[in-house]
Amino acid sequence: MNRSLLPTNNFSQPISSRITQIQVSSIKEMMILAEQERRKGADIISLGVGIPHYKMPAYIRKAITEILNTKPDIDKYTLFTGIPKLKQLIAVQAEKKVGIAATEENILVTPGSMAALLYTCLTLLNPGDEVLIMSPFFASYREQVALAGGKLVEVPLIEPKDKNDLYHLDLEKFKKLLNSKTKAVIINSPQNPTGAVFLEKELKELAKIIENTQVYVITDEVYDYLIYDNVSYFNIASIKNLWPRVVRCCSFSKKYGMTGWRVGYVHADAGLLKHIMKVHDSTIVCTPHISQEAVYAAISTESPENEINIKLLEENRDLICQRLDNLPDLFTYVKPKGAYYIFPKFSLKMSSIEFALKLFHEAHVVTIPGIGFGMAGEGSIRMSYGATKDEINEAFDRIEKWWKK
Amino acid sequence: MNRSLLPTNNFSQPISSRITQIQVSSIKEMMILAEQERRKGADIISLGVGIPHYKMPAYIRKAITEILNTKPDIDKYTLFTGIPKLKQLIAVQAEKKVGIAATEENILVTPGSMAALLYTCLTLLNPGDEVLIMSPFFASYREQVALAGGKLVEVPLIEPKDKNDLYHLDLEKFKKLLNSKTKAVIINSPQNPTGAVFLEKELKELAKIIENTQVYVITDEVYDYLIYDNVSYFNIASIKNLWPRVVRCCSFSKKYGMTGWRVGYVHADAGLLKHIMKVHDSTIVCTPHISQEAVYAAISTESPENEINIKLLEENRDLICQRLDNLPDLFTYVKPKGAYYIFPKFSLKMSSIEFALKLFHEAHVVTIPGIGFGMAGEGSIRMSYGATKDEINEAFDRIEKWWKK
Repeated sequence: MNRSLLPTNNFSQPISSRITQIQVSSIKEMMILAEQERRKGADIISLGVGIPHYKMPAYIRKAITEILNTKPDIDKYTLFTGIPKLKQLIAVQAEKKVGIAATEENILVTPGSMAALLYTCLTLLNPGDEVLIMSPFFASYREQVALAGGKLVEVPLIEPKDKNDLYHLDLEKFKKLLNSKTKAVIINSPQNPTGAVFLEKELKELAKIIENTQVYVITDEVYDYLIYDNVSYFNIASIKNLWPRVVRCCSFSKKYGMTGWRVGYVHADAGLLKHIMKVHDSTIVCTPHISQEAVYAAISTESPENEINIKLLEENRDLICQRLDNLPDLFTYVKPKGAYYIFPKFSLKMSSIEFALKLFHEAHVVTIPGIGFGMAGEGSIRMSYGATKDEINEAFDRIEKWWKK
Repeated sequence: MNRSLLPTNNFSQPISSRITQIQVSSIKEMMILAEQERRKGADIISLGVGIPHYKMPAYIRKAITEILNTKPDIDKYTLFTGIPKLKQLIAVQAEKKVGIAATEENILVTPGSMAALLYTCLTLLNPGDEVLIMSPFFASYREQVALAGGKLVEVPLIEPKDKNDLYHLDLEKFKKLLNSKTKAVIINSPQNPTGAVFLEKELKELAKIIENTQVYVITDEVYDYLIYDNVSYFNIASIKNLWPRVVRCCSFSKKYGMTGWRVGYVHADAGLLKHIMKVHDSTIVCTPHISQEAVYAAISTESPENEINIKLLEENRDLICQRLDNLPDLFTYVKPKGAYYIFPKFSLKMSSIEFALKLFHEAHVVTIPGIGFGMAGEGSIRMSYGATKDEINEAFDRIEKWWKK
């Protein structure tokens, strides 16, 4: 199925079949379209790519400036698995978080959690292997699984009737789809694109289902600290009898407003990590040195700013829900409990690609077509509320004006 | 064949077969061993990993400090293919260099040329496809080709009898190994690990051989500016009738002493690049923003420092040759014409792994076993002369002392 927003590519030389099966994510395609229009002078407002608007805290920038001008080897490679003091600190914090003993042997510092996820797919999956995913799901999983020759199998989330309730895992469907080809399940909670947070009870039940299999659990914990309404968060990685079949893919991008620095990490069994790090070795010599130091500065001192930023995003969530409430004949939605995305359904009889392109060309607002997030995403669009309140308001002013026409 | 310097990994859960076929490069394994010994208090001198000792020029650091504190979105993602002004500048310089028309549509900014090479392998190769490589070769090619399911086929270089002469391509052997499974050839000149620079005449002959095939040419141009003795450099990418089957993988790491910043790029046909960028999209959201700005600063102002650095490395080359000349019963070598590696043969009857480990444990000098660079590398070790003169001298003082025992 064509999910592409961009013109067909007519390159005629023979290339690999894996590459013909994947495409640039809808998120990036919308970024390209927006860039093209901006160059023509268009005034575009973006609820597209997931970037929190807040700045990286000042204490991190201060530390970077100092390191940049004083650390003698700052321009050189680090040890390929990461700077030892950073791995050690991450290990301490990871152990505290999930209660699984960790040392630096369990940590690989990566250029973002995207790399962590791709490395994991290439390490675990043989061609034909299946990966179960709650759908809708983060766009890049499909491409990452496909690059490894695997197949993403969608388990649609159960949507609550009341917009204030939680999404639920469809464990009956999960059980049905689980088979001898299933190699892994990806758990992303809080979830992109719905903002769903999964319940401890349901995750424990899921763990029970795969307890006596060899199925891996890949956790994408990018939004783990971004929880609203005091919803209780449970990390499936903390279930001891799943280890060493758990691979934690984590990031520092969102919490510290440092998406552009590109640092994440893998936390896994040391023996498994020795395999995963082979892919890292073939991909990038090491995560950029300055970025690793930036993250060390970020996580070695906690700052109240980080808590303030969560509050800001919760306010944004309330704002975007309120603006959606003003358009009841166009949008219905489930209120997100985490992350900074909302995934409203739209009432128009058209595909999500058509709708997103309409909003883009006619209202000059970037959103992401839901089909980019799996079959279960058709009929919806993703909006990021990582933007500022002014941007959210401006985007909705435009959408309202457009809709009234 | 086991090329590993580290203990076997006994992880017992099922993983992908591709991952069991690859390993961490010998270069990184030696880094790990060195780090382990240093932690025990050992005084280790490294001629191992290829890092030029000179600093990143001051004008780049100054620009970074300023950007870090003034560019409002410096902590955020860039466009996933790279910052437009950087791609535009790279395109101008690339066009000047190889004489192939280039715009930003032909450029993808990557986290180093390693990523560029891996992306290219995943884009071009189907399982079973063969890639021809002059051997010995840079260690990671094998793993990158294997990750894509391909097979590296070695074409041994013809070594000159006189140590001052040039290596030659074995074009007869090349022709014999070329077959319907051949998907690509990798050209790396100046070459890692030998420092060989390939002649225009031979490269043109090679181009002629593949002219009417569909074979791609992947150029690894990491050391392209590092040429000594006024040897004339020819870039195979400038042969117009090979385009669009050429993928140029380039780097800023070595010239500007900024290995730790991790920036390189792919220059290719725009249609082909649209495929390659899909892998980039699935690997890393974008090359780190600050690193891209650092490179923009580096290449938008040329500085005499860069020329001085080449001179420094040429002096180092002369120094390491002279020190090897003092050990004629242990080493023989071909004088490198480029890059900053030398690949001497050793006279002892043992494997290159045994010899490198002996030098490491008994003389506390890091070198890389030649087998890491292909079958043609057995019997040699790689030494980097990117280190300072003092380090090179200290390493050879130790080796001499050890050898006299």
